Amino acid sequence: MNPSHPPNPRPAKTGRSPVTPTQPGQAETRPLPLFRQMTIVGVGLLGGSLGMICKQQGLVETIVGAGRRVENLKTAVALKAIDRYSTDLAEAASGSDLLLLATPVDTFEDAVKTCVPRLSRAAVVTDVGSVKGRLVTRLEALVPDDIAIVGGHPIAGKEKSGVAAATLDLFRGTRCILTPTPRTHPDALAKIRQLWECTGAQVSEMDPDLHDRVLGAVSHLPHIVAYALVNAIASIQKSQTPDLDLQTFSGGGYRDTTRIAASSAEMWRDICLWNRDNLVDQLDQYLSCLETFKALIKSRDGEGLYREMERAKHVRERLM
Amino acid sequence: MNPSHPPNPRPAKTGRSPVTPTQPGQAETRPLPLFRQMTIVGVGLLGGSLGMICKQQGLVETIVGAGRRVENLKTAVALKAIDRYSTDLAEAASGSDLLLLATPVDTFEDAVKTCVPRLSRAAVVTDVGSVKGRLVTRLEALVPDDIAIVGGHPIAGKEKSGVAAATLDLFRGTRCILTPTPRTHPDALAKIRQLWECTGAQVSEMDPDLHDRVLGAVSHLPHIVAYALVNAIASIQKSQTPDLDLQTFSGGGYRDTTRIAASSAEMWRDICLWNRDNLVDQLDQYLSCLETFKALIKSRDGEGLYREMERAKHVRERLM
Repeated sequence: MNPSHPPNPRPAKTGRSPVTPTQPGQAETRPLPLFRQMTIVGVGLLGGSLGMICKQQGLVETIVGAGRRVENLKTAVALKAIDRYSTDLAEAASGSDLLLLATPVDTFEDAVKTCVPRLSRAAVVTDVGSVKGRLVTRLEALVPDDIAIVGGHPIAGKEKSGVAAATLDLFRGTRCILTPTPRTHPDALAKIRQLWECTGAQVSEMDPDLHDRVLGAVSHLPHIVAYALVNAIASIQKSQTPDLDLQTFSGGGYRDTTRIAASSAEMWRDICLWNRDNLVDQLDQYLSCLETFKALIKSRDGEGLYREMERAKHVRERLM
Repeated sequence: MNPSHPPNPRPAKTGRSPVTPTQPGQAETRPLPLFRQMTIVGVGLLGGSLGMICKQQGLVETIVGAGRRVENLKTAVALKAIDRYSTDLAEAASGSDLLLLATPVDTFEDAVKTCVPRLSRAAVVTDVGSVKGRLVTRLEALVPDDIAIVGGHPIAGKEKSGVAAATLDLFRGTRCILTPTPRTHPDALAKIRQLWECTGAQVSEMDPDLHDRVLGAVSHLPHIVAYALVNAIASIQKSQTPDLDLQTFSGGGYRDTTRIAASSAEMWRDICLWNRDNLVDQLDQYLSCLETFKALIKSRDGEGLYREMERAKHVRERLM
């Protein structure tokens, strides 16, 4: 263990609430810039937006983009999301003290293996991935003690992807969850927290495994729900109304319920497999709720049906 | 059978496509006003908006509102959705040649029984209800031959309800499905079609039973999907993360997928029970699609998972 980075004295899993919300004004703030050079691996909507914000606010001195598509990287320079770029990942990481992983989560391990030997001493590795849990454990195992891993997940996004859709206010008012472990250097955590607070996000800290349970429920499960609903409509059309295009008879309800079924299959396949155990369990709970509705409708139990609907309505209205 | 209203010579169930889209320019148009006096039973978002449009365009000479809440009916007069009102249903229907049912569908039969004896000869009864099928059959059995039933379902709505939310453009660009039967008088059908075309809606005709299959799939099923998802999140929270308010960690995905779970439990209970047989069958197809996803995730079948997600994405993108 590098003595300049003692392990976090407050282990994430015991002795305190599982979630630590931001306490405005209480967080220690470091002088800017927080980092000398950041490498963004994957300059898309999330990575590009964070790059733009870091440059505009002077949070980072220099930003290097890494990616495969030169056209996209040129756009990122034009949009002031990065200062320069390389299509060679190791070269892009050379000398950086902050590595931001913003590609699909399946690529994180290879990217860390390639970049870590080129980072400066005591660098910080962070990410914007939708799963944490065992991914964080595996990334930690890949880096020497003086490199800090700070898992991060901004709960933000929009229909469009790519750096052309990046904006300075993408994270404003959204949540960003950081997932420190007992091994996380407190100084690295504080700097990443400050960086996200500067984007206007509300930052929480959460155990990586708890993160995956929480996001499995409120994000991964709804995606499966939506994908399956669209596939069900296609099956129903095939078996019951082959002459009609069912979707053209839909209103705002179907449209909203299934909007996220147009999300990237590659990205969501990976997320579902990484969060397999939580998701299978949560799918079982959802299937059980659906079976309840089916039984009530089948037995014409209007009172029971009303009660289940009112329960959902009451919970959902708290989110309005 | 009243000789001035011969039955529709083109039965809805045979010899033609199950859906007849609007053929602009081909529809016969009647001189305005189409009706002398309309009674709107339930002057809310849908009934109120249609009243405002009918008055503005002179489609109907006089509009009488019927309802229980005087305050709401006064607002409807102020908003020019109706000319006058009564809280006595029979009185409100007296002498009208158009009766519009715009209350929850469970109340339609009682309203028809009360109003029909007071309507003028050869009056038309129509509605804006979300189910048709056996409801239309039952309403037809309640009226004498010279009264026409023309089922109607504008696929429109918004978050807010009540006449205060009514607008002149609520139906513009939306679909309105009419559900004539072999018994429907062609003249009545033509006038109701013209009335809806004047709202800016795209009018289709569909067999009442087919309507319920189609709307079961693209509207009623998504509501059950959303209600059940919210209840599942509440169950997961209780069993897995009792210290957290899970919904506060959600992003746009959960928000959109569950928006309609805040819909009226009373209204949706009735719709689900009226469309029970279709809905139970369609829920089974949905459950089967979900089980497919669960099995693929459980067995870590990334290729199969990608294929199912891509299939949904491809279908859903056609709706963009």
